[in-house]
Amino acid sequence: MAFRSSRALPALRAARGRAILSTGRSICQVAPPTVARCITTTAVRRDAGLKQVKLTSETYPDLKRDTRFAEVSKDDVAFFKELLGEAGVVDGVTKDATDDILAFNEDWLRKYRGQSRLVLRPQSTEEVSKVLRYCNDRKLAVVPQGGNTGLVGGSVPVFDEIIISLNRMNEIRSFDEVSGTLVVDAGVILEVADQFLASKGYIFPLDLGAKGSCHVGGNVATNAGGLRLLRYGSLHGNVLGLEAVLPDGTIVEDLCELRKNNTGYDLKQLFIGAEGTIGIITKVSIICPQRSSAVNVAFLGLESYEKAQLAFRAAKGQLSEILSAFELMDAGSQELVHRVRGNKKPLDDDHPFYCLIETSGSNGDHDYEKLEKFLEDVMSNEIVSDGVLAQDETQAKALWGWREGIPECLGHWGGTYKYDVSIPLKELYQLVEDTDAKIKAAGLSGETDEFPVIGTVGYGHMGDSNLHLNIAVRRYDPRVEKILEPFVYEWIQKRNGSISAEHGLGVAKKKYIGYSRSDSMIGLMKGIKNLYDPNGIMNPYKYI
Amino acid sequence: MAFRSSRALPALRAARGRAILSTGRSICQVAPPTVARCITTTAVRRDAGLKQVKLTSETYPDLKRDTRFAEVSKDDVAFFKELLGEAGVVDGVTKDATDDILAFNEDWLRKYRGQSRLVLRPQSTEEVSKVLRYCNDRKLAVVPQGGNTGLVGGSVPVFDEIIISLNRMNEIRSFDEVSGTLVVDAGVILEVADQFLASKGYIFPLDLGAKGSCHVGGNVATNAGGLRLLRYGSLHGNVLGLEAVLPDGTIVEDLCELRKNNTGYDLKQLFIGAEGTIGIITKVSIICPQRSSAVNVAFLGLESYEKAQLAFRAAKGQLSEILSAFELMDAGSQELVHRVRGNKKPLDDDHPFYCLIETSGSNGDHDYEKLEKFLEDVMSNEIVSDGVLAQDETQAKALWGWREGIPECLGHWGGTYKYDVSIPLKELYQLVEDTDAKIKAAGLSGETDEFPVIGTVGYGHMGDSNLHLNIAVRRYDPRVEKILEPFVYEWIQKRNGSISAEHGLGVAKKKYIGYSRSDSMIGLMKGIKNLYDPNGIMNPYKYI
Repeated sequence: MAFRSSRALPALRAARGRAILSTGRSICQVAPPTVARCITTTAVRRDAGLKQVKLTSETYPDLKRDTRFAEVSKDDVAFFKELLGEAGVVDGVTKDATDDILAFNEDWLRKYRGQSRLVLRPQSTEEVSKVLRYCNDRKLAVVPQGGNTGLVGGSVPVFDEIIISLNRMNEIRSFDEVSGTLVVDAGVILEVADQFLASKGYIFPLDLGAKGSCHVGGNVATNAGGLRLLRYGSLHGNVLGLEAVLPDGTIVEDLCELRKNNTGYDLKQLFIGAEGTIGIITKVSIICPQRSSAVNVAFLGLESYEKAQLAFRAAKGQLSEILSAFELMDAGSQELVHRVRGNKKPLDDDHPFYCLIETSGSNGDHDYEKLEKFLEDVMSNEIVSDGVLAQDETQAKALWGWREGIPECLGHWGGTYKYDVSIPLKELYQLVEDTDAKIKAAGLSGETDEFPVIGTVGYGHMGDSNLHLNIAVRRYDPRVEKILEPFVYEWIQKRNGSISAEHGLGVAKKKYIGYSRSDSMIGLMKGIKNLYDPNGIMNPYKYI
Repeated sequence: MAFRSSRALPALRAARGRAILSTGRSICQVAPPTVARCITTTAVRRDAGLKQVKLTSETYPDLKRDTRFAEVSKDDVAFFKELLGEAGVVDGVTKDATDDILAFNEDWLRKYRGQSRLVLRPQSTEEVSKVLRYCNDRKLAVVPQGGNTGLVGGSVPVFDEIIISLNRMNEIRSFDEVSGTLVVDAGVILEVADQFLASKGYIFPLDLGAKGSCHVGGNVATNAGGLRLLRYGSLHGNVLGLEAVLPDGTIVEDLCELRKNNTGYDLKQLFIGAEGTIGIITKVSIICPQRSSAVNVAFLGLESYEKAQLAFRAAKGQLSEILSAFELMDAGSQELVHRVRGNKKPLDDDHPFYCLIETSGSNGDHDYEKLEKFLEDVMSNEIVSDGVLAQDETQAKALWGWREGIPECLGHWGGTYKYDVSIPLKELYQLVEDTDAKIKAAGLSGETDEFPVIGTVGYGHMGDSNLHLNIAVRRYDPRVEKILEPFVYEWIQKRNGSISAEHGLGVAKKKYIGYSRSDSMIGLMKGIKNLYDPNGIMNPYKYI
């Protein structure tokens, strides 16, 4: 079988046989928003609007304030003002500063709200050290906060924990233009770091939708995954070193700028993904790759998930070093986007599955040629039913829109139950089918208003085995939740999957960790927590 | 300036303008030996021959057997035989088995020799668990041993520690052909794993000269660097999960096969590079990239280290995603290779510095074109003085020979003092110049026999900021050692370098860790050691 779509054909054929390709065609920088993709595992109500956010302690009534912790006194505030100056303290203890503190107490999704009355804004590692030592001695609980863009309630307090904001520690410290090693303060905004790197011909090896607000320190503390993981790997590989402060004030001096350093335990790794529960990251050293000058995007239609796997395998083989994204979208997700936005679909016919492929490389002509050859192969081998290749940046963005628009469009009718999970690739999509079947068997899904569920869809970073399972609903209905949980978690547990692929645990997933980790592993993790934070003051009520 | 060498010209010009290149030209698989590169920091005597290896306890008289440890009794041996069967125990306690145990007591460089009288060879994780729990209860010290190819004495005992060999745990457990995730027992030989992967079109993301003997578990335990780090990154990024056993028998169940899993502390990272001091790795899960079908090699002459840095920067920019090696060799190192081997030099003229560049990609024609364009650019910009591009696999291997042959040729006249270090790229080569100047100022270096030092040379994985500083000597002379140490270590310390880039600490570098790590960091590391191995039975007398 050759190309099925007459509209897709010219796009593909246009380039064939050309010796010299115009550079304007295929060169574009695509950095689509990603945070919107994977918001929460709980239904988000459209009418949340500007109503006051429910207190986390009310949403999770099982959580009780730990009586081991002291309450912040006026003397404590005086100490902190002496140490950090007036500008370093948002004081809601000795005066009313509720409004000033609100932005620190609430997460940006307006799902979680804490009750802190004190925000500290240190300007140096030494200040962080003195603050933590004091809090540890006084048994004052704290919550480290970066850009506050997390999705699981990890960066806001539950009760009256002191918020330690890193937003005044935001200097780019150094950059080695030969090796690509960047050293920044934890409070540097990801986009600022990336723009700085762009001016040097480099790129931050992490990209995500919240990049305009999130902090590099927070990215490291949550082991953020994002868009570039398929190509550049995880932060565990890219972070060369970090500086952090333990609750007792000890500074972890591990700001190595070398790619190779085999001198003892790699302690920094523990802080990557620890969500601020054992210390506060204050500086990060990271290896940055060269920025690709050329980006190409293709959009494919496929008749089964098996064929999507074959296409992925073929893409890895033929696109290999230039493959930078391989995204999966099912028919349901694309149909919802079409219904909401009404845009003309990229392909003429409908297909059960779609894949979006992005390549990034140093030579646009070479990349285009590889991508074109790949498309010819997968089409002639009947792996892919139809496909289109973006001819310019506008087309590339439009194609990305069909992937990136899913979360927003899913919420159009009411709310969405969302799961961000990892599953071995072979069974990745099976979860969507099994969940859909279960909802349908319970008679909860249908076209008309009497049914709470509109549809069950799946999409995600197929290249990373990372699925977003979404159930679009018309309204909240406890019967839906009862069908979904613990079913989804148990399903994942049976396949040795992960109940949190990239978002972390925070408050939201703390109680589900047992589905992805054994009691023995959780016990070992608690050993680490106790080693570094014996008083338990660091970001309590969360994580493990 | 254009190409200077008339001989190099045809090679470069031959391909120019060709529309179709023959595949035989540039496609070759180059996997040169690497272990020989960086043998030891102590002079290796040529006459070591077959003489008995000196006991490590004699070489390091400061090391005393820890009296906390019990001695292996006949009852212990009986227990182990009952547990593992006769084939699972090499028993030098109840009978004379010195010869059988010798290969386990000695390292392969014949630099270290322990005095163990018992080797255990478990066949399953459960057996490892039972062995360790028993040893921990009895306070019997142990040394985990993989392929025993380490370079710092980490895999052999110092005194009478029980050797736990993983060589009977050697099954390839699973491979996912779509995701590229491989799961193997710790005792699988690296080359066996890589050959298995080759049959599937994949490659192990680590390559080193000892691959025919070393174990994957040992590679992970020592955080091996090797040849592919520049391209595929470190094991901290590639290892997805592992299973390990703690001294108390607890099995660390972290054999995750997912690329993304943010559910708690990433404990597996602690075992990567822990050199068997907190537990024994029993299984490894690792993400493997697609195997490149095309490999190209270029050899360049440059007039200064500054130009080598410019060439590296240009290579990263233009070769970007296909760059797989960037090696530096100074004139001295190449002159020594030439004097020993007498081969015709790759370039007509001599140059102060040489770089070897390798590319690996999915399309040989594209890669060759990029490399050719890169060479034209760096030559016309006078960054590179001269260069040659391998036309076939034989030429590629010959070019690699000028890099790979250095360690062997350096030892030709007597011995070599070798340092494997990481230094920020800007000052990488300065260490060689400063060391050379110091030796010359002391009147120790010269052409004739009265001088102990033949020459000081530098080479290494420039792409990873990893330098091999080598001082070739005619004979052992304490004056040379006095010049070198602590000078070299202090020099590295001042630049925040690493005294062990990829070899680890073992016995050899234990006492030098203070040059690369602060007391505070060493204290934190000891906290981890005490947490997991409170009795200190795991690989004692080494590491931190």
